[in-house]
Amino acid sequence: MSAPPSIPKGTRDFTPVEMARRNYIFDTIRSVFMLYGYQPIETPAMENLTTLMGKYGEEGDKLLFKVLNSGDFLAGTDEKSLIARDSNKLLKHVSEKGLRYDLTVPFARFVVQHRNEIVFPFKRYQIQPVWRADRPQKGRYREFYQCDVDVVGSNSLIYEAEMARIAEDIFQRLGISVIIKLNNRKILAGIAEVIGEAGRITDITVAIDKLEKIGLAAVNDELSQKGLSDEAVTNMQPILKLQGNNQQKLEKLSVILEHSETGLRGIEEMRTVFSYLEALKLSAEVQLDLTLARGLNYYTGAIIEIKARDVQMGSISGGGRYDDLTGIFGMPDVSGVGISFGADRIYDVMNELSLFPESTAHSTKVMIANFGGEAELAGLSFLHRLQKAQISSEMFPEPAKMKKQFAYADQKKIPFIVIIGSEELSSGLYQIKNMVTGDQQKYSPAEIVAKLLGLNI
Amino acid sequence: MSAPPSIPKGTRDFTPVEMARRNYIFDTIRSVFMLYGYQPIETPAMENLTTLMGKYGEEGDKLLFKVLNSGDFLAGTDEKSLIARDSNKLLKHVSEKGLRYDLTVPFARFVVQHRNEIVFPFKRYQIQPVWRADRPQKGRYREFYQCDVDVVGSNSLIYEAEMARIAEDIFQRLGISVIIKLNNRKILAGIAEVIGEAGRITDITVAIDKLEKIGLAAVNDELSQKGLSDEAVTNMQPILKLQGNNQQKLEKLSVILEHSETGLRGIEEMRTVFSYLEALKLSAEVQLDLTLARGLNYYTGAIIEIKARDVQMGSISGGGRYDDLTGIFGMPDVSGVGISFGADRIYDVMNELSLFPESTAHSTKVMIANFGGEAELAGLSFLHRLQKAQISSEMFPEPAKMKKQFAYADQKKIPFIVIIGSEELSSGLYQIKNMVTGDQQKYSPAEIVAKLLGLNI
Repeated sequence: MSAPPSIPKGTRDFTPVEMARRNYIFDTIRSVFMLYGYQPIETPAMENLTTLMGKYGEEGDKLLFKVLNSGDFLAGTDEKSLIARDSNKLLKHVSEKGLRYDLTVPFARFVVQHRNEIVFPFKRYQIQPVWRADRPQKGRYREFYQCDVDVVGSNSLIYEAEMARIAEDIFQRLGISVIIKLNNRKILAGIAEVIGEAGRITDITVAIDKLEKIGLAAVNDELSQKGLSDEAVTNMQPILKLQGNNQQKLEKLSVILEHSETGLRGIEEMRTVFSYLEALKLSAEVQLDLTLARGLNYYTGAIIEIKARDVQMGSISGGGRYDDLTGIFGMPDVSGVGISFGADRIYDVMNELSLFPESTAHSTKVMIANFGGEAELAGLSFLHRLQKAQISSEMFPEPAKMKKQFAYADQKKIPFIVIIGSEELSSGLYQIKNMVTGDQQKYSPAEIVAKLLGLNI
Repeated sequence: MSAPPSIPKGTRDFTPVEMARRNYIFDTIRSVFMLYGYQPIETPAMENLTTLMGKYGEEGDKLLFKVLNSGDFLAGTDEKSLIARDSNKLLKHVSEKGLRYDLTVPFARFVVQHRNEIVFPFKRYQIQPVWRADRPQKGRYREFYQCDVDVVGSNSLIYEAEMARIAEDIFQRLGISVIIKLNNRKILAGIAEVIGEAGRITDITVAIDKLEKIGLAAVNDELSQKGLSDEAVTNMQPILKLQGNNQQKLEKLSVILEHSETGLRGIEEMRTVFSYLEALKLSAEVQLDLTLARGLNYYTGAIIEIKARDVQMGSISGGGRYDDLTGIFGMPDVSGVGISFGADRIYDVMNELSLFPESTAHSTKVMIANFGGEAELAGLSFLHRLQKAQISSEMFPEPAKMKKQFAYADQKKIPFIVIIGSEELSSGLYQIKNMVTGDQQKYSPAEIVAKLLGLNI
């Protein structure tokens, strides 16, 4: 009859196997967030367009999914825009709501709206999907989950260190070896200042970033081409040649930036964060990385990025300090710091490195085979006993051929089958078959429950 | 500057306190679903409108939230519809996607689309939000979660019994005392058949439902007014006067319905389900209730409804057997049965009966007070030790006045504060204060960890 059903491009269904793996990631992230004292919030999928528009740049506005007003959406629309087919002008008449684009703007809106119910510093986490009308491609979706953890209402650098610890803890639990990269926007601003090109932070950072790839001479050329004065380029040289471990780099930088108050403050912040990380016994490698330029238009202090060691992949988590997130909604001077974990990238890394534990492969531990009649009722009673003991279990729904019943258990990766036929009913001993080893034995029902509880599957 | 931010009407933010309670409900539901061998799936928030339209009746089509096409949505629109401002006609040009209205249609679409990857009988659960452009009112929202559990691809009545068991188990864990009501559409069809009014199932059910409220005479009047023949009304009398326990009712019905094949099959099904429920040792009260008319236009066999005992509230869960869910997507003859749990109603019941456990009131177990300098670093080291022991903990972010630090812990309902000042640093004994009892004592760091691990908070 109808065409086979499909879903909108860039969106996904998740099958039980994928869900088990995704939930393993989400549960790990959630439990670490809670361990560090962060509490969950949730915000609606739809926000007013007035909340969302203008917060992600002109390009971002275009990528927002807009929801058509209910009912007669053309009523009261502007006739001229209609006839001119002016989609832009008509938009504000036909749509008032959009799907959230990230969790940051809704969080800012939440903080302002609930300011009187919130305890500051407000440590919150949020794990929800976001939607972007991006062109779908490999690894980029129109609906995807973000896992954000933030604290707002405190300038304490303890939280910068905490973000690094949280990332280390999560990736340690997931088995992903990581490098934690740190930068500070104030150091970048200091550099721009001392070379006499304040306000050219981005150009400078991009140039430093290319150093390894294209070499010093080419970077200097590029800086000149970008319009930096010869003097500025000369002043950049010690920074481009910066070598050593984190402490050594900071020491050299403190000399280079000695005339920039902002730069020195950035160095001081970085040193404090390192001292906190030491107290927190961070064991992952931490790198001061001046090329880290993530979110330069909103991060005001620390910039954090986490890279997986054993795979070719961009960052798998990142964040930083922002000083005025809630200012857009009329509540200025609320500083915050946070990081975000991308479930899809983490999933891909874990898949590539085969890091998902065996336990994510099966859900039901025991299937009771169905022989019909009295045996079926006995099976249901035993099923109840297993479930009372919190053993995930099910009964095959009809007295089908054993081959069919075993095939079902096999496809569903159920590791144990309990057989209760007429013989078992009269002897009172049930058979249990291990589907992995093929081993089959007879035990009393109580023994089977005890054995299943003792096995870690 | 700008107006205080808000969210679209009928949608909600969830604060940490609400989230802790909601997650308690979701986690309970999820763990029971998994215990019975059901596996999670997720589908995208947006479905193609071709998937959704026409599945919920004309009224439902109007209540779908439609998503505006990206980019120049007016390009290629029909000029006549534009000028006539014909919203209905224009809709198909400006919108191709909608937000899911329930989890049932997306599930049917999922089964058909993934039929070759699925193991049948397919036992799945799905916990996701749905959206409806309903007029918001108390207890009715435009975004709300549904928790659905279904099995498709089997006619076995074991699953009818399992749905009742799942409901009993969930509500037992949540502390809600319930009555499980069962009906069967085949019995209703049989009644309509034997009184000579096949096809009037709904009128008949509505009339039976009013019996208690308006009395037998008024019900008979209403049946006549609805156009039932005098003979039909006479034939209805034994059914309206049906008394006794479930077994007695079924026996009487089997006499009344002796000439209806469908009716007798319904009775037989009901008896089988009761025998399964006995084997599964269901302890909740189960009532055969002929007035149960939920979803009469799609349920084909069992109809299930769960009512909370101690509150004035409609059903808190319900479902039934459907024989052709996937037929709308071109895959006929796949029978299924399922029930749905409404998180909001369950939340309201638990709130009213004060059933949320104390543990949902706090998340962080320990706060370490901050005295700055060396003490701060020692505090962070102890924080690390607590977190390594999986004790949810945080450090106050700055050496503020104790009053302020304690007020934070108090507001966040953190039950313990650890104090590490200069005295504690030199003695090596830290103070721990129980915020509930006010009790304050000194212990070694190791003792504090051990004590906190032993306490069940």
